Amino acid sequence: MASNEFDLIARYFEHQNVNRRDVALAIGDDCALLNVPAGSHLAVSTDSLVAGTHFLADADPALVAHKALASNLSDLAAMGATPAWVSLALTMPTPDEVWLRRFCDGFFALADYFNVQLIGGDTTKGPLSITLTVHGFVPEGQALTRSGANSGDWIYVTGQLGDSAAGLAVLLGEVTVADEALKATLLERHYKAQPRILAGQALCGIASSALDISDGLISDLGHILKRSQLAATVDVDKLPLSAELLAFEPELEKAQQLALASGEEYELCFTVPEQNRGTLDTALAHTGVKATCIGQLRTGTGIKLMRRDELLEWQLHGYDHFAE
Amino acid sequence: MASNEFDLIARYFEHQNVNRRDVALAIGDDCALLNVPAGSHLAVSTDSLVAGTHFLADADPALVAHKALASNLSDLAAMGATPAWVSLALTMPTPDEVWLRRFCDGFFALADYFNVQLIGGDTTKGPLSITLTVHGFVPEGQALTRSGANSGDWIYVTGQLGDSAAGLAVLLGEVTVADEALKATLLERHYKAQPRILAGQALCGIASSALDISDGLISDLGHILKRSQLAATVDVDKLPLSAELLAFEPELEKAQQLALASGEEYELCFTVPEQNRGTLDTALAHTGVKATCIGQLRTGTGIKLMRRDELLEWQLHGYDHFAE
Repeated sequence: MASNEFDLIARYFEHQNVNRRDVALAIGDDCALLNVPAGSHLAVSTDSLVAGTHFLADADPALVAHKALASNLSDLAAMGATPAWVSLALTMPTPDEVWLRRFCDGFFALADYFNVQLIGGDTTKGPLSITLTVHGFVPEGQALTRSGANSGDWIYVTGQLGDSAAGLAVLLGEVTVADEALKATLLERHYKAQPRILAGQALCGIASSALDISDGLISDLGHILKRSQLAATVDVDKLPLSAELLAFEPELEKAQQLALASGEEYELCFTVPEQNRGTLDTALAHTGVKATCIGQLRTGTGIKLMRRDELLEWQLHGYDHFAE
Repeated sequence: MASNEFDLIARYFEHQNVNRRDVALAIGDDCALLNVPAGSHLAVSTDSLVAGTHFLADADPALVAHKALASNLSDLAAMGATPAWVSLALTMPTPDEVWLRRFCDGFFALADYFNVQLIGGDTTKGPLSITLTVHGFVPEGQALTRSGANSGDWIYVTGQLGDSAAGLAVLLGEVTVADEALKATLLERHYKAQPRILAGQALCGIASSALDISDGLISDLGHILKRSQLAATVDVDKLPLSAELLAFEPELEKAQQLALASGEEYELCFTVPEQNRGTLDTALAHTGVKATCIGQLRTGTGIKLMRRDELLEWQLHGYDHFAE
């Protein structure tokens, strides 16, 4: 059993497969020293995952690690940035080696996949939580922001929506799913989202705005509307739903509501001007990611949910940590 | 009472005095977008402060904020870096506005002083803790690392040592100090360390290695020795002790032991080759920081504590989060 902080850090975090040439000094000094390519912005995002709030304390540490890093990388994807480095602040009640080993398995599997190097962090004693700060690059003037959308632009989402919420309901025991294969798939979708890095990069120069869906489409689309000072019309029949979601929730209306409110999807929501729609499919083709048009931006405020020509009066909201 | 995460962030963290020209996009999007000057490394460091481990849950939030940011900036100082930006991950049980307002007072007072801009972060629900990631710049080839020291180099510390440990003992009620002015001074020294940013920058090109004293001199000097593969001799009579420390602990030997083991000092420990000793005082003069030579590096391993020619057999160790 490792008995002190420094041993733990040395043993679990100093050895890794990724050794980037833009890292001049990595773990082990007061700071990491890094090189940002000329002509690129540095893109930085921070996310915390807290046991009891974002994951169950007895969850598989490999899945927790994946979720923490995936959600953070997803913010880089939403800017069209290329991931480079990550800092990890890990707080745990005791230096549990079994937990740490599994955590590292999940963490480095995803970090290696995206060629992301762990450059430092902090290991402290306290209630279990993980805070990651990811760093990436995006060519100057190319970043996808939330504020660039215009009236008339079309609203798209990548992948399929709602599976994460269904997986969470299964995880929390709110719903019983008899079909074991379906249950496993939904849990996997909840925990193991793939950040849309390649899709984000492909959207640079095509999309007018973008963000990742972490608090639910209805809530996150609201951020684009607020920043771009626009309104949106969304056709709920266009929402991309998986076969698994419809097996979990056969009632279409309820499945669509799940898709609108489901948090932690880590799909991208983005807007495309009419003149760029033709190049969108070509640009995304090599990424293996499908995008679906679900609505359109217009002047005004708020989100109108429609089923064809009928205005829906659904009361929905995204995830809010401090909501009563 | 703010009811949701986004309101909180907007109300307390979006408005600040520092607006740096190297911040292309600040709080409010998926990532911050930043520009690193050509010819400079980006220096990055992360620190967590957890209630119950690093501070008492009922501590003045302004002091907690100062301590969190000061300890993180101190890592930049130890590399000779110039601070630029900081990300803040704040986890709290409830959105307590009174606490947040005080926290922001302490945080922005120090951030403004060093022209550091808050560029983003995360606000989550859970046990009270703060994780900061600071970013700064250091010209390529100029950074002070832990590994550059050579046998024969002289060991220096900035400021005075031991006051932080004395303040902590007062804070924890381990010791009763009748003199209210002395008590206030020691508590201030514990909570309100000033990161040695200017001194760190002045040491570039003069010091062969450096770090900041966060876990106690005896422990931190060990990091330089390990990285530089050297041993050290420290003359305990050379340790810079304040009049307040000697009032708190009149027994010299015990005061010296406090100075050796006191964590969270945020003074710099650094090494200087013989040929640079002459320029050291001149370089530090404009910073208002005094440095004291306390010993010398030699070949071998370990730290020898001496009183003049007498080898001391003191058993000391620095702070370790997971020590039994």
